Amino acid sequence: MKIVIIGVGLIGGSFALDLKEKFDDIELAGMDQNEDNLNRALELGFIDKAVSLQQLNEADLVFMAIPVDAALKVLPEVLNLVNDDCVVIDAGSTKKNLCAVVEGHPKRRNYLAAHPIAGTEFSGPEAAIRGLFRNKTNIVCEVEKTAFKLQDKAFEVFKAIGMNIRYMDPESHDRHIAYVSHLSHISSFMLGKTVLEKEKNERDIFDLAGSGFASTVRLAKSSPEMWTPIFRQNKKNIMEILDDYILNLQNFKGLMENDNFEEIFEEMQRTNHIKEVLNGINKNEELKVEDHGK
Amino acid sequence: MKIVIIGVGLIGGSFALDLKEKFDDIELAGMDQNEDNLNRALELGFIDKAVSLQQLNEADLVFMAIPVDAALKVLPEVLNLVNDDCVVIDAGSTKKNLCAVVEGHPKRRNYLAAHPIAGTEFSGPEAAIRGLFRNKTNIVCEVEKTAFKLQDKAFEVFKAIGMNIRYMDPESHDRHIAYVSHLSHISSFMLGKTVLEKEKNERDIFDLAGSGFASTVRLAKSSPEMWTPIFRQNKKNIMEILDDYILNLQNFKGLMENDNFEEIFEEMQRTNHIKEVLNGINKNEELKVEDHGK
Repeated sequence: MKIVIIGVGLIGGSFALDLKEKFDDIELAGMDQNEDNLNRALELGFIDKAVSLQQLNEADLVFMAIPVDAALKVLPEVLNLVNDDCVVIDAGSTKKNLCAVVEGHPKRRNYLAAHPIAGTEFSGPEAAIRGLFRNKTNIVCEVEKTAFKLQDKAFEVFKAIGMNIRYMDPESHDRHIAYVSHLSHISSFMLGKTVLEKEKNERDIFDLAGSGFASTVRLAKSSPEMWTPIFRQNKKNIMEILDDYILNLQNFKGLMENDNFEEIFEEMQRTNHIKEVLNGINKNEELKVEDHGK
Repeated sequence: MKIVIIGVGLIGGSFALDLKEKFDDIELAGMDQNEDNLNRALELGFIDKAVSLQQLNEADLVFMAIPVDAALKVLPEVLNLVNDDCVVIDAGSTKKNLCAVVEGHPKRRNYLAAHPIAGTEFSGPEAAIRGLFRNKTNIVCEVEKTAFKLQDKAFEVFKAIGMNIRYMDPESHDRHIAYVSHLSHISSFMLGKTVLEKEKNERDIFDLAGSGFASTVRLAKSSPEMWTPIFRQNKKNIMEILDDYILNLQNFKGLMENDNFEEIFEEMQRTNHIKEVLNGINKNEELKVEDHGK
């Protein structure tokens, strides 16, 4: 199987590493508009060679992991160039615009819209890690628009690297992901900004910060190149939930102002329900690991 | 050495576990107004027996890890009861009010105001873990008001469990901790609340949440019993930084509304500086581990 990874960063690189481990007879080629990253990926050995767009017609599977604005331009070009038996998968964090852009493309059946819910706050080829996708959810949109045998090919790969598939329409995807992913990035970036500004004249003050602060600002290390176009493409959904978040913070501040700590207590107690929600995720993951072991 | 732990939860329990490991000749007794917790601590074995306030006069060291509102009442009583050679340490997350309450106490010299920057989002005796304090910062306030030999006794214990001491006045402590700890808890609670409200009619939607969401809402699992009095006592500092946080979020929303994604990009890039800040913390920890090994 000939595979081309477009964008050899955290996601593309981790995908390549897993594939190399799980499949015997594969050839992994890479493309990246950043030449340094491409060379680093070659050095790290998760791709065997660099290829150009013109060589895409030989690929059996193309995996795109590039910023979502670039994807809008690159995906139609890639589809123009691949052969009829090649499946093109993208891993971007927004799906509505990209699905719309290739809606009428003559090779729409070669495309599978995916979003693996996996990653870290780091980026670039050095950030690629083995097993990143294991027991993680992969959201697939508009699966019915992909040719049957190309779905099969993609799902064989997803299964091999341990992913759990969920189907969703692109609009619902973008809405729910605004809530459970994009908002977290904004809350984290603004938290980091607020505290950095406040402590800018203090030395060593972050020695006082514990694991709680580290956890809530972790996502503020994320790549602006990747996240700016996500915020742009999912503007409507993000602004809606960001409004709710700001209102809840203002309400909390109002309760503090009025010394209504009884209501603050109750609000926190109700929100503690997040424990069960997150435990649910962990339980699912444990079950999946067990299933895998059988 | 006879030690009494007042409040046998996450912090008190973890302190007891470490002490048991590091000191040979100690007797660990516990007190807790929650009888279930006290029995659980006895079952788990990190305390040897339960004691009453009347038995405090035998203690060599008292460690208080209870909600900060309860501490205001309990600390003066404890100081009334202990002998002259006993050091009383508290581990609460606010220091100004507590230091003020015992300012003129005849046994002020027996008290050492501390704040170990260590913990998890869990609470109660079951949450106690070994090594929680290792390589963590312990902020000590008004050290000059504690008797020399009682300082020595406390620092011997802190050193044994691997803590790194920082000195600070109570007002500065409360202010900086509002920024690097208390605000994170509010941002996390409100994020959890916002998403739970938005997704309340959806089933299984949290299957879509990844490690980023889990990281930013982790603190929303924290105990309302512990956190409500912290917010009450540190109201002024918290409201000030909460205002800044809300303004930054509103500003971000404004940039999105005006499609000013160039500025959003630059703002995120500037905030990426948090990487070095957090790496600094990690580097310090590594250095400390090395020092320890020498």
